[in-house]
Amino acid sequence: MTEQRIAADVVAADNDRRAAALNADYATLGEKLDRDGIDIEVITQKVASFHVAVPSWGVGTGGTRFARFPAPGEPHDIFDKLDDCAVIHQLTRATPTVSLHIPWDKVDDLRRLKAHADALGLGFDAINSNTFSDAPGQEKSYKLGSLSHTDAATRRQAVEHNIECIEIGRALGSKALTVWIGDGSNFPGQSHFTRSFERYLDSMKAIYQHLPANWRLFTEHKMYEPAFYSTVVQDWGTNYLIATELGEKAFCLVDLGHHAPNVNIEMIVARLIQFGKLGGFHFNDSKYGDDDLDTGSIDPFRLFLVFNELVDAEERRAEGFAPAHMIDQSHNVTDPVESLMRSANEIRRAYAQALIVDRAALDTFQEDNDALMASETLKAAFRTDVEPILAQARLRTGGAIDPIAAYRASGYRRKVAEQRPAVASGGGGIV
Amino acid sequence: MTEQRIAADVVAADNDRRAAALNADYATLGEKLDRDGIDIEVITQKVASFHVAVPSWGVGTGGTRFARFPAPGEPHDIFDKLDDCAVIHQLTRATPTVSLHIPWDKVDDLRRLKAHADALGLGFDAINSNTFSDAPGQEKSYKLGSLSHTDAATRRQAVEHNIECIEIGRALGSKALTVWIGDGSNFPGQSHFTRSFERYLDSMKAIYQHLPANWRLFTEHKMYEPAFYSTVVQDWGTNYLIATELGEKAFCLVDLGHHAPNVNIEMIVARLIQFGKLGGFHFNDSKYGDDDLDTGSIDPFRLFLVFNELVDAEERRAEGFAPAHMIDQSHNVTDPVESLMRSANEIRRAYAQALIVDRAALDTFQEDNDALMASETLKAAFRTDVEPILAQARLRTGGAIDPIAAYRASGYRRKVAEQRPAVASGGGGIV
Amino acid sequence: MTEQRIAADVVAADNDRRAAALNADYATLGEKLDRDGIDIEVITQKVASFHVAVPSWGVGTGGTRFARFPAPGEPHDIFDKLDDCAVIHQLTRATPTVSLHIPWDKVDDLRRLKAHADALGLGFDAINSNTFSDAPGQEKSYKLGSLSHTDAATRRQAVEHNIECIEIGRALGSKALTVWIGDGSNFPGQSHFTRSFERYLDSMKAIYQHLPANWRLFTEHKMYEPAFYSTVVQDWGTNYLIATELGEKAFCLVDLGHHAPNVNIEMIVARLIQFGKLGGFHFNDSKYGDDDLDTGSIDPFRLFLVFNELVDAEERRAEGFAPAHMIDQSHNVTDPVESLMRSANEIRRAYAQALIVDRAALDTFQEDNDALMASETLKAAFRTDVEPILAQARLRTGGAIDPIAAYRASGYRRKVAEQRPAVASGGGGIV
Amino acid sequence: MTEQRIAADVVAADNDRRAAALNADYATLGEKLDRDGIDIEVITQKVASFHVAVPSWGVGTGGTRFARFPAPGEPHDIFDKLDDCAVIHQLTRATPTVSLHIPWDKVDDLRRLKAHADALGLGFDAINSNTFSDAPGQEKSYKLGSLSHTDAATRRQAVEHNIECIEIGRALGSKALTVWIGDGSNFPGQSHFTRSFERYLDSMKAIYQHLPANWRLFTEHKMYEPAFYSTVVQDWGTNYLIATELGEKAFCLVDLGHHAPNVNIEMIVARLIQFGKLGGFHFNDSKYGDDDLDTGSIDPFRLFLVFNELVDAEERRAEGFAPAHMIDQSHNVTDPVESLMRSANEIRRAYAQALIVDRAALDTFQEDNDALMASETLKAAFRTDVEPILAQARLRTGGAIDPIAAYRASGYRRKVAEQRPAVASGGGGIV
Repeated sequence: MTEQRIAADVVAADNDRRAAALNADYATLGEKLDRDGIDIEVITQKVASFHVAVPSWGVGTGGTRFARFPAPGEPHDIFDKLDDCAVIHQLTRATPTVSLHIPWDKVDDLRRLKAHADALGLGFDAINSNTFSDAPGQEKSYKLGSLSHTDAATRRQAVEHNIECIEIGRALGSKALTVWIGDGSNFPGQSHFTRSFERYLDSMKAIYQHLPANWRLFTEHKMYEPAFYSTVVQDWGTNYLIATELGEKAFCLVDLGHHAPNVNIEMIVARLIQFGKLGGFHFNDSKYGDDDLDTGSIDPFRLFLVFNELVDAEERRAEGFAPAHMIDQSHNVTDPVESLMRSANEIRRAYAQALIVDRAALDTFQEDNDALMASETLKAAFRTDVEPILAQARLRTGGAIDPIAAYRASGYRRKVAEQRPAVASGGGGIV
Repeated sequence: MTEQRIAADVVAADNDRRAAALNADYATLGEKLDRDGIDIEVITQKVASFHVAVPSWGVGTGGTRFARFPAPGEPHDIFDKLDDCAVIHQLTRATPTVSLHIPWDKVDDLRRLKAHADALGLGFDAINSNTFSDAPGQEKSYKLGSLSHTDAATRRQAVEHNIECIEIGRALGSKALTVWIGDGSNFPGQSHFTRSFERYLDSMKAIYQHLPANWRLFTEHKMYEPAFYSTVVQDWGTNYLIATELGEKAFCLVDLGHHAPNVNIEMIVARLIQFGKLGGFHFNDSKYGDDDLDTGSIDPFRLFLVFNELVDAEERRAEGFAPAHMIDQSHNVTDPVESLMRSANEIRRAYAQALIVDRAALDTFQEDNDALMASETLKAAFRTDVEPILAQARLRTGGAIDPIAAYRASGYRRKVAEQRPAVASGGGGIV
Repeated sequence: MTEQRIAADVVAADNDRRAAALNADYATLGEKLDRDGIDIEVITQKVASFHVAVPSWGVGTGGTRFARFPAPGEPHDIFDKLDDCAVIHQLTRATPTVSLHIPWDKVDDLRRLKAHADALGLGFDAINSNTFSDAPGQEKSYKLGSLSHTDAATRRQAVEHNIECIEIGRALGSKALTVWIGDGSNFPGQSHFTRSFERYLDSMKAIYQHLPANWRLFTEHKMYEPAFYSTVVQDWGTNYLIATELGEKAFCLVDLGHHAPNVNIEMIVARLIQFGKLGGFHFNDSKYGDDDLDTGSIDPFRLFLVFNELVDAEERRAEGFAPAHMIDQSHNVTDPVESLMRSANEIRRAYAQALIVDRAALDTFQEDNDALMASETLKAAFRTDVEPILAQARLRTGGAIDPIAAYRASGYRRKVAEQRPAVASGGGGIV
Repeated sequence: MTEQRIAADVVAADNDRRAAALNADYATLGEKLDRDGIDIEVITQKVASFHVAVPSWGVGTGGTRFARFPAPGEPHDIFDKLDDCAVIHQLTRATPTVSLHIPWDKVDDLRRLKAHADALGLGFDAINSNTFSDAPGQEKSYKLGSLSHTDAATRRQAVEHNIECIEIGRALGSKALTVWIGDGSNFPGQSHFTRSFERYLDSMKAIYQHLPANWRLFTEHKMYEPAFYSTVVQDWGTNYLIATELGEKAFCLVDLGHHAPNVNIEMIVARLIQFGKLGGFHFNDSKYGDDDLDTGSIDPFRLFLVFNELVDAEERRAEGFAPAHMIDQSHNVTDPVESLMRSANEIRRAYAQALIVDRAALDTFQEDNDALMASETLKAAFRTDVEPILAQARLRTGGAIDPIAAYRASGYRRKVAEQRPAVASGGGGIV
């Protein structure tokens, strides 16, 4: 039986207070959708089946190069982190898997880790390698590159690290490796673009050879940061080249915050779907750069437009379409558990809104070039308040109608703050 | 013998005044380069052999959606335009070819056009089709798309227009077709991204079938404008997909002003070279969007960095590397002839600076990750004042040491202003 | 009695079909808001009282520098335009005033114009001067500047044009002059920033002297276009300096599309309110530059955040707070009447959503630095579907429940297409 | 007598090898400038008198939120840092002052610090307060704000810290306080823009009261980071409001990397000069955000355009014009001493290029609206290779002809690496 980090009665009590209003709102919404020919139960069912992975590193407080301001009760190791992740899933029922980051989450005893996750009812999503920082005691530094480094021994070390990640993932039940590197340059001339990319491709091919048959390899592009002039995997164009060079198990991961200003991300998603190379997402939101803010907090309509592409592909059964969904955020000023719960919720919201788009009408408006009504068709779905569907999906699967309220009522943060020693502040001076 | 639109003695008189100083500066620069192991004559020879095409539409005054302010002596037809282009080439010796835009430059008698160009010593570069505006009397409108239009008849018309462009180009000696379309959407939902792109690819394949064996097909991407939400060929990633879908005669054209803010364009150039799909350039400069300003006027270092990639590819004999160079600018406040002459000069300047980069040193610094000295190696070349090389290259090939001065001394603009009736102002109200 | 361009029975018939559903939805929403302590009737009343001006030029089809694609039934003069504006107001009841653009809307007989507007039940909002294009027969050209031109006679002409605009506005009942200029430069060095701005301020002071006592002067900033290197009134900082230099009747106008990428516009709005200089808005939406798309079509949450500032100021009775609301869009692919109706609706939607923000709770969350709940408080209001309020406000004031549907049912566009001769296409070649 | 960290004979030996070539190049350049009516000695003298402050924190290796990769010989305290700064000044003769950051550079014995600086021939520039990170043992955290915090006690602590900085600065001979805060919000709703700014202004007024009569107060704006939705001092408009609210000793500091994409920074500089509020600069370069790269390494023409404004103001003796110059960079992949030496050099380069602009010609071209020749006038100065002037200025004042070469020849980094224990890596996990 699954261990629960939040007492069931706390959740039940909070749910009880909210059930009547929810049921009323749900019934009303059901009637409204019914007028439009939509069966609310179908939507609720799909939403309840929609899951997104939580990043293990997301449950700690994030920071910037200027500072990190720790919060009470921060997790100390992957066991603490899994506990926090379990809370998120207990209340949202949307996040049954956790994505690990190696070496941050490295443990001596993988069986014990697996057992801890099993007890909490959690599985393991894609495993993330890390060659953008140096681990203590590491022989070769990644200061000037990893998989694309000019030094063969450094590249080999980075390749071996990725292979080790695959091994760890196999032991834990992961089915994918996610590779994001910080390799790039800070000055024109520092790197030879072509040779760097050739070295990168060689390294990736070496890793790909070790990929189990039923695994997928996700590569993630990013415009800039930590490199500030050029980045080896800088955009979806390069990412697509990687995925085609590597083979049919290689796919492109889209992080919503990794693009140039003003870029039409949903169109990139559509292109990757069309050419069979969409691996999945790192969800977050941003206003300026890779801000890693809570998903849907800055531009919820953009998130909806991404899901509009995903549902479109789902409904027309686009070939090879099977994206992996993960959250990747930095929680600098909020309780990470709260931010992750609401982010999971926002992702489901966008999915639900996209599900109720009248696609037959949309097709006709597109065919007729009725730009205004096509636009309105999407807007009508977007402005529908689907919260009753989301809450019902949670309630029916054992979660909380209002996860934030239930979480606060539980006193979880206060309790772990008592149990877990304070983590040091830091980051000051890394300007 | 080539007809000259500017009297030879005017040019000679201006050159005479400047020759002594030029020769002194050239000798000094030669000595300086010699200290660095560079033979100035090799550079001058390469610069003299470097040519860039002039756009026929560039010799008219440009404008914005708010207004177009005509200037005296604007060309009325392609014959006038060729005269202006001949002036540019006479003084710079850098622009022996003209790129036409159909139907703007359409004539009844192609032989007469060819003869006029021959007389002026001009050839024809890539021919540009136009399906982003409606020609008078055109059956189907391109208001809502052309090659990607939902209506098959409209697509067919656009395909046929491109085939006609190929025919015109064959008659004139062109060897390439450039396709830039404005197709896209202004609102989320208006277009189905995938179906639009499928239709576009189908249309392009139909055009590609008509491409002569020794021709190339250039497709040009652009982030936005005239479409303001999505654009079918929005970035180099999509452009690369097009080129690979079409075949080995299809290549990507890079317009320096068609990218998202902050994008590293030189890296895109490197990627396209690496994967054998760089077709060439539309040169201009920009600060905000597709500003179409004079090449090198806003960010000359960026232009140099692009040429650094080109020279690098040239020197390591990258496979299939043969970019086509063209200027594409909008001259709203300057005399177009002057802007085009200096732009051609700026392009050669960037080329010359890139030629004197110490590539052996650069390789070593890159291999050693000496970021500072690698950066300095490029900066040292960039800050070398290569104007004596450019001027000498012009002088030796019969051009002007100072093309702007010679042009102004010739009174050309005043003369054509007397001969050519004024062109109406316009654009007001197209907000 | 007001002349109506759409037959009342057409509207009534369409409303009848929708009234039952609307009333049900309205009742449900009322109950939901009541649970949160909000009286829906108060909101509906405020929404019904909220008006936004329509731009006379907005009812014609817009275009880009590449092309303008005309549509059937385009208005030929300001009388036609007023007819179209009357339709917008008849169906939305949100747009009782029209903003003119001189000289585009100049007429010989202002009394006749006023009478036409009166008959249609329309008034006149701010009057817009135009010194960014040349009118036929104009003595001095604005090609190289107007109010900031280096030539004193050109500046004088531009000043006099603005004074004439004030006179026209007085005759028509306007109470404000809006000044937006295209002055700037395309190349570094072209303009002396300081001297240009001094000249601009001198010109504006001359205009300000002629401003009637009960008028306001609105100046509008814009980052770029039509000038592509520098713009004299480039941002809110410069706009604020202008308003303070001119005096207490001078205010800053905020066009949502006139800012740099990623800029936090709602914060600029807050600053201008705080320092007593917010004049009002030109509403539209954009993804890249000054795209002038339909308000709320690209980033509806941003529009809501702007209104969140406005309602905040309204409720705390910020001193001198009285913004003027106007739409300023370019309708390139839609029926302008339809786009303007839905844009007026979107503006009211954002207003209604901002009205239902729980400001007491928000204050507490802000005071407590509960970032997550503060964010959620805004999101909760934003995701409320307030369409029943907007529809009810229209219905009760004599408009249409679904203005687009009623408009299409009326056949208005078809009728005017028969009456009004086709307007020529254009714009091709102004690249 | 000044202590020298690099042996004089090492520098002399390197200079000797380069003197002949330098003198030849200097003579040639002198002749060329003489042809244009410019006395090279005047330029060299001005360049030799131009100084820029070095940031104490700049001599340590920087990092990002992802990682910091330490380098050999990193300074451990402000005494080590001053040693490194002394090397920079010894070789460049351009950086006689150091800007401190408190509490990073806090010491018990200010007299000892002053004596150390005196011995090295260094003075102290503006002192920087730090309320964007928490110092160990600090009572109130700045996690959710400092000078604008909702909590009065936190604001008071931040005010007192700034007052302490003034006291430290007084003891060391500083004449200015620089205040940059990270205050802002990550989510819409988190902060009340107006109340936050009111609190900020109140705090700043309290600090301003303690400013000595002959001091200046510099406030620095920044668009984003570490706050990712809103920033209290977000742009020059707000910065200008602050400076005017505070009084005549308050000025705006411009960091070249703190603006929105595409913003015309030189125009902001011109506006601040015109309205008497330009305090000075934090020099660096950037391609994406606040990248803090070496000055002039990414867009040297932009740096030149900023100096074009500064020299223009200097030559027309703009009232109150006395900007303070400082470098503010993050050296992640280079030896910080090398990066700071070349950055100081690049700043002088831009200054020298701006000094040789033919301003009389430029004025005429601007007055005549000869955009092309105005643009060319700036470009002609920019492309002049002024390195001989810079080198001569260094040589004549006791520095190195080639500071990087002399520094590398000296083995300084190797020596301090032996003396200074390694600093820990870090930053991993602050995602």
